Amino acid sequence: MIALERAVRFEEVDAAGIVFFGRYLGYAHEAMERFFDDLDGGYVALINDRGIGFPAVHVEVDYRAPLRFGDSVRIETCCARLGNRSAVLSYRFVRARDGVVAAEVRHTVVTTHLASLASCDMPADVRAAFARHPLG
Amino acid sequence: MIALERAVRFEEVDAAGIVFFGRYLGYAHEAMERFFDDLDGGYVALINDRGIGFPAVHVEVDYRAPLRFGDSVRIETCCARLGNRSAVLSYRFVRARDGVVAAEVRHTVVTTHLASLASCDMPADVRAAFARHPLG
Amino acid sequence: MIALERAVRFEEVDAAGIVFFGRYLGYAHEAMERFFDDLDGGYVALINDRGIGFPAVHVEVDYRAPLRFGDSVRIETCCARLGNRSAVLSYRFVRARDGVVAAEVRHTVVTTHLASLASCDMPADVRAAFARHPLG
Amino acid sequence: MIALERAVRFEEVDAAGIVFFGRYLGYAHEAMERFFDDLDGGYVALINDRGIGFPAVHVEVDYRAPLRFGDSVRIETCCARLGNRSAVLSYRFVRARDGVVAAEVRHTVVTTHLASLASCDMPADVRAAFARHPLG
Repeated sequence: MIALERAVRFEEVDAAGIVFFGRYLGYAHEAMERFFDDLDGGYVALINDRGIGFPAVHVEVDYRAPLRFGDSVRIETCCARLGNRSAVLSYRFVRARDGVVAAEVRHTVVTTHLASLASCDMPADVRAAFARHPLG
Repeated sequence: MIALERAVRFEEVDAAGIVFFGRYLGYAHEAMERFFDDLDGGYVALINDRGIGFPAVHVEVDYRAPLRFGDSVRIETCCARLGNRSAVLSYRFVRARDGVVAAEVRHTVVTTHLASLASCDMPADVRAAFARHPLG
Repeated sequence: MIALERAVRFEEVDAAGIVFFGRYLGYAHEAMERFFDDLDGGYVALINDRGIGFPAVHVEVDYRAPLRFGDSVRIETCCARLGNRSAVLSYRFVRARDGVVAAEVRHTVVTTHLASLASCDMPADVRAAFARHPLG
Repeated sequence: MIALERAVRFEEVDAAGIVFFGRYLGYAHEAMERFFDDLDGGYVALINDRGIGFPAVHVEVDYRAPLRFGDSVRIETCCARLGNRSAVLSYRFVRARDGVVAAEVRHTVVTTHLASLASCDMPADVRAAFARHPLG
């Protein structure tokens, strides 16, 4: 499991005063980038130098407790399933002040050549990065 | 079914050049607001005057084809399930230039007093608004 | 003058309950895109087909009155100055419910080849589009 | 001077492939929050517990060099002017990979009771925080 903790930012709440439901996917993406920190050059080199990315094909989110400005959230990321070209990332959002699970996200991605948006086999180092942090 | 068509905005793409996967939920929220246009005062009055909103408890998205800057997307919104306090909204994202389904979203919301974030019974006019546009 | 009216969206406010100050530039960009509607293919064709854009080199914003969820804002766009490669767009943000000026933006842009990010001469049709809507 | 370094995020670029010009103000706001880290409870307590904030009344941005996904930016924040109720924050955006100044922002804020949005005198500890980091 790889963890990222980050504060809710001033502009991330909505008119109901809680973090907008769509922003959880932005948070998940940040956590995914962190997940690849031990790849050579990290997620940035994968995108910018190798032209490989992970567009989402499916996402599920369970929202369990709200996040507000002033909260900090710890996002715990694992690989829940690993296929030939696809993987499922699992994110647990834990509210820092009380340990309450604010949300859970399952994020199915497909290894993709960004220039063509065609799927491709997962490079060995990427597969190894996913495999190092299995769920449960 | 209630439809909203809107252009992809310049700032809505990501470093892969396609609409960021989290933005689809912002688009869905826009479509939900439109869905309530025939309520008195619309979604705005519900939030601002009556203090009632629809926080998400669950979301599922299937991403089927990318959207880019220059695309316009038609979002078709229906009510897929109607409970006592909850409802499931179903959104079909149709890319305007070719009719391809870019994404499908299922969005489970719970009727909520925004001041307390406690769930509440669905007001009759809100229930009627959901019921007027059942899924297929 | 070219006008765009748009509602404040649910996710555009901040933890103070007013539209986040950075979003005014997103609104201004929307108004700039509308400003070019009478170009062949509009702003989208300029970016996507001709590879020409208008990165900002300078921006000034005066914030005069807050915008909240439920407000709608009318953005009136003019060309305040026209150079060989640069132009200054002027935006007046008028709050729809009471006609109060919420903000004024001055936005200096430079005609740019997007592939190289090098400045370039302004094409004649672009210059004509700017010139059609002078300030004052 | 107080510095914040942060990476450009995947979703912060626009259809021209560079950080959207409006996002610089979000970056500046992050840097302003960091600026108040040595207040008791930081910026969050100021907003959430004391109900005091700093809405912008004026902003000027000079954009000097683009930022892209993969870049990291160091934002150096100072207080350029200190009035009774207002202050001018000055931010220098330095691109981490080459030390190039990507942007400079001047941000005039007014001390404000958030409940009423009326301006108010600057509390002594806030004044001291501004005064500790003068420009130049």
